[in-house]
Amino acid sequence: MRIAYDGTDFCGWQIQPGAPTIQGKIEEALGIILRHRPDVVGSGRTDAGVHARGQVAHFDLPEPIDTLRVKGSLNGLLPDSIGILSLDAAPDTFHARYDARLRTYHYYIATEKAPLSRSHRYLVKPSPDFALMNEAAQMLCIRENFSAFCRTQSETKNRVCFIQKATWLNETYEGHWVFKIEADRFLHGMVRAIVGTLLEIGRGNRSVNDLPETIASRDRRMAGPAAPALGLVLEKVSYEPE
Amino acid sequence: MRIAYDGTDFCGWQIQPGAPTIQGKIEEALGIILRHRPDVVGSGRTDAGVHARGQVAHFDLPEPIDTLRVKGSLNGLLPDSIGILSLDAAPDTFHARYDARLRTYHYYIATEKAPLSRSHRYLVKPSPDFALMNEAAQMLCIRENFSAFCRTQSETKNRVCFIQKATWLNETYEGHWVFKIEADRFLHGMVRAIVGTLLEIGRGNRSVNDLPETIASRDRRMAGPAAPALGLVLEKVSYEPE
Repeated sequence: MRIAYDGTDFCGWQIQPGAPTIQGKIEEALGIILRHRPDVVGSGRTDAGVHARGQVAHFDLPEPIDTLRVKGSLNGLLPDSIGILSLDAAPDTFHARYDARLRTYHYYIATEKAPLSRSHRYLVKPSPDFALMNEAAQMLCIRENFSAFCRTQSETKNRVCFIQKATWLNETYEGHWVFKIEADRFLHGMVRAIVGTLLEIGRGNRSVNDLPETIASRDRRMAGPAAPALGLVLEKVSYEPE
Repeated sequence: MRIAYDGTDFCGWQIQPGAPTIQGKIEEALGIILRHRPDVVGSGRTDAGVHARGQVAHFDLPEPIDTLRVKGSLNGLLPDSIGILSLDAAPDTFHARYDARLRTYHYYIATEKAPLSRSHRYLVKPSPDFALMNEAAQMLCIRENFSAFCRTQSETKNRVCFIQKATWLNETYEGHWVFKIEADRFLHGMVRAIVGTLLEIGRGNRSVNDLPETIASRDRRMAGPAAPALGLVLEKVSYEPE
């Protein structure tokens, strides 16, 4: 299934006892519909406050279900802040996390107050130098160990990611910008650490020429602070055509 | 000044005693900054719950002010739901309402749950026939008496409007649609009545061929019900270049 959510009121994707999570809400609703609660496996976790318009998840069932009916019931039971965009039968071997080939995140920034999108847009004033930030973003489009942008508590051993796209674009509305980044995988806190570092460059507090050294250090302390969760949206997870 | 607002928590643009309004909030904040409360004149009223990304308003002052400073103070005093996008000195004769030449409204629809834009997007399921709705929209691009789409309580005598553009477009995200309409002026409740009527056509409950007759009737009862306020955004007000 493909899932959209407003992460504002959730403690992230992953189930935690006693805290509202997206995974928890979906499992709870499925438990009511199917009369047993399946384990829902997401393509990856999103942190507290991070949003999605294209999260992908799967769950296993002993027998086929009427997917259209279950999708409708799910959307009815879930709050307005979570939407099931599609629900389809997948091959038995399909795994939302292991089979994902490409993940697309967007980070949204406003350089002027943006009342209608204030729940998912980080207000940055004055406007940073986006041309410089784009120059820096290009240096990130490599296959590399990105430990410098990985949360220090992360237990992930393999820190190599292949960033295929990283670019700042001006949107339809004046003062609205989006950072589009695509990679085969992302480390814990990676997009927010990258955006925070690029913002330091765009504000003139860090040189664009230091970025290769920052990456090479593999030291989180060398990169900038994490940008706030509210600007980040998991837009798409891509799989092999089959 | 150009103003953006999330209309959700306001009783519309125009000041009403004892109710939160956008005009009221701005006059109140200006009163604090300038030490006297000016009358703020908008390009037009927006109803309760209607949003804006490009409302225009003016106010008169006895002497020049530091517009950049006042803009900053205004944004600081106003809630997150109201943003002053620009504030500039205008010629003494400028009038935000009388001088407006073209007004652009967008009406946003989602055909699947849209958690991130649920405050300004009307959920319509199942998906209506947008091709048919576009066919109908083209018939509206005329200079005509649009009384059929004007709220019956309206005291406006001149009901002639010149609609220059009316079109449904599919947006970047699947199932997200926007209706873009431009005219020299709009009557009270006009865009919402038009959208409601087009939705009846798109749902197969009204024939596209009846639309010219509906317009010619000049009778509000012949058109469809008003679409909800939450989908409507005043995007832009245009003036003569001088």
